[in-house]
Amino acid sequence: MAQPSTISPVPLLRDELDIVIPTIRNLDFLEMWRPFFQPYHLIIVQDGDPSKTIKVPEGFDYELYNRNDINRILGPKSSCISFKDSACRCFGYMVSKKKYIYTIDDDCFVAKDPSGKDINALEQHIKNLLSPSTPFFFNTLYDPYRNGADFVRGYPFSLREGAPTAVSHGLWLNIPDYDAPTQLVKPLERNTRYVDAIMTIPKGTLFPMCGMNLAFNRELIGPAMYFGLMGDGQPIGRYDDMWAGWCTKVICDHLGLGVKTGLPYIWHSKASNPFVNLKKEYKGIYWQEELIPFFQSVTLPKDCTTVQQCYIEISKQVKAKLSKVDDYFSKLADAMVTWIEAWDELNPSGAKSAEVPNGASK
Amino acid sequence: MAQPSTISPVPLLRDELDIVIPTIRNLDFLEMWRPFFQPYHLIIVQDGDPSKTIKVPEGFDYELYNRNDINRILGPKSSCISFKDSACRCFGYMVSKKKYIYTIDDDCFVAKDPSGKDINALEQHIKNLLSPSTPFFFNTLYDPYRNGADFVRGYPFSLREGAPTAVSHGLWLNIPDYDAPTQLVKPLERNTRYVDAIMTIPKGTLFPMCGMNLAFNRELIGPAMYFGLMGDGQPIGRYDDMWAGWCTKVICDHLGLGVKTGLPYIWHSKASNPFVNLKKEYKGIYWQEELIPFFQSVTLPKDCTTVQQCYIEISKQVKAKLSKVDDYFSKLADAMVTWIEAWDELNPSGAKSAEVPNGASK
Repeated sequence: MAQPSTISPVPLLRDELDIVIPTIRNLDFLEMWRPFFQPYHLIIVQDGDPSKTIKVPEGFDYELYNRNDINRILGPKSSCISFKDSACRCFGYMVSKKKYIYTIDDDCFVAKDPSGKDINALEQHIKNLLSPSTPFFFNTLYDPYRNGADFVRGYPFSLREGAPTAVSHGLWLNIPDYDAPTQLVKPLERNTRYVDAIMTIPKGTLFPMCGMNLAFNRELIGPAMYFGLMGDGQPIGRYDDMWAGWCTKVICDHLGLGVKTGLPYIWHSKASNPFVNLKKEYKGIYWQEELIPFFQSVTLPKDCTTVQQCYIEISKQVKAKLSKVDDYFSKLADAMVTWIEAWDELNPSGAKSAEVPNGASK
Repeated sequence: MAQPSTISPVPLLRDELDIVIPTIRNLDFLEMWRPFFQPYHLIIVQDGDPSKTIKVPEGFDYELYNRNDINRILGPKSSCISFKDSACRCFGYMVSKKKYIYTIDDDCFVAKDPSGKDINALEQHIKNLLSPSTPFFFNTLYDPYRNGADFVRGYPFSLREGAPTAVSHGLWLNIPDYDAPTQLVKPLERNTRYVDAIMTIPKGTLFPMCGMNLAFNRELIGPAMYFGLMGDGQPIGRYDDMWAGWCTKVICDHLGLGVKTGLPYIWHSKASNPFVNLKKEYKGIYWQEELIPFFQSVTLPKDCTTVQQCYIEISKQVKAKLSKVDDYFSKLADAMVTWIEAWDELNPSGAKSAEVPNGASK
């Protein structure tokens, strides 16, 4: 006799993955995600006023950190964690003790695939992370490890083993992730195109990594996922995930790790205010014209064999080459070093069983 | 009053594009393509026995070249054109006087999109060729020039103009373009996944270019589209389009031109015999392990500013570095030079109105 259908299989990586959510409000959006997220542990990073109480729907297993917690845990090193900006989420990556992280914004809902079925975004991210990437040669039929696909004629056999996947970058239906100028020019544009593909971003190619719907292997690449200095007291915002993405990609390329983009989609419910965004972005928009050539030309010495070593090396190059763009990059370079010091303090090497710092736990 | 719907618009680029078809049989497959291809001029390259008559369905405008025509037109230089292999198609690129080429195999039929509508593959290729590419930075929402899409946040504004598109590489539903070993291992695998995307293959990334469903801008990249020495008297087959793709991509990267892949799909009707394919491919399969690193490391000097100059430079590097792999590459390097000489003879520079060589015309 077949097993009753009420027995669900154990969710993939249930004990090896944390979901990190930065927020300033009650987490009602979790209701929609309950069937997919409830088995997992959440790390909530509360931004803004720490005296405010964030309501989390019943039944979720979570720990929550507000600014007071961050200051207490990191002490003077808390200066590297942004305030009044969702960049604060990277604190959650640091305090996690799990191998994998999924991070999602609280205005992202469950999307539907073209057949009308709810998309389990987390499950797709996990599949992306657990199968290899193909950064060294392009496969025209997209992800060759997917069911019904393979490597095409002309794909070198020596490269078919692929590379370990460090990052899975998911996309967004409805409100696309546009910058303020594009939002202003195309206020009504919605992303309705469901592209049924997952692909590896080739080695040597930079991409705009969005933090809205993102998963990564913390053991492989965690220390590179620093979301920079944004928000309160800083001259820019909305470049936190971009900065992390550029650093991450350069390091993945150096270490032979893969970065995937494509499925899964989430439903991005609400466009942020383009006028506010323009104010946050405008310096980034012109600084970026120098940042991209900088990251395209970064080379890391062969003796940088850990993510931390690579990251410190990038921080030095940022200080040496980008300080002339603006003093901000000198501060940022220092913060990058502080971030790595704090990461190593909370994640002593080999000490996988290190205690979780004391946040508000449930 | 609205115009009667029976008045069709003039097909895109009707007088600027040739369709090149290599074949050994009657072209009944054109019946299915009639609504899309009939307005265009066809260049048919008849492979194999020149005494055989190839039937072309009524109503198509075409010129046809068999081996005798090729020998007569090119004289001793005809040695660079393969015989008993669909690689002979590149002769059609050479005798065309049009700006654009679309080439398709005679076992490729009209595919349907997910809504059940016939896909006008040629029209999609033309759209791909007429809109820019984005080889210098990755756009996560795929082709930013498509309706309903744009550049995402974090895409440098200075790069949004894109690069001219030289190549549009289309894909295949039903029988995927697999090598012989994969065909043998997965005889029943069919490609049923319609991925609704067009994307630029980033600068610096090689890809396996398939000649089954391929369009390009002949003025921008034509002389690089040499399909090599395959078939009769040669030690390999089925690497003709791959060779052209590697050379083309390296030259496009050097000259700042774009290569797109994705839509349109055609319906690939029949898998070729995997045992025959294995015999053709096996040397290519192991040579390729040296060819890919070679092409990944090719650099072209700055003073190579035309496709011809770039191609001759690659031929020199092939001779210098690949002859040790097999004598074949020494012969191939010579043939690459012959190909360029023949190209320039038939396409004297600036002489766009040069006479079409005398093939069997209808």
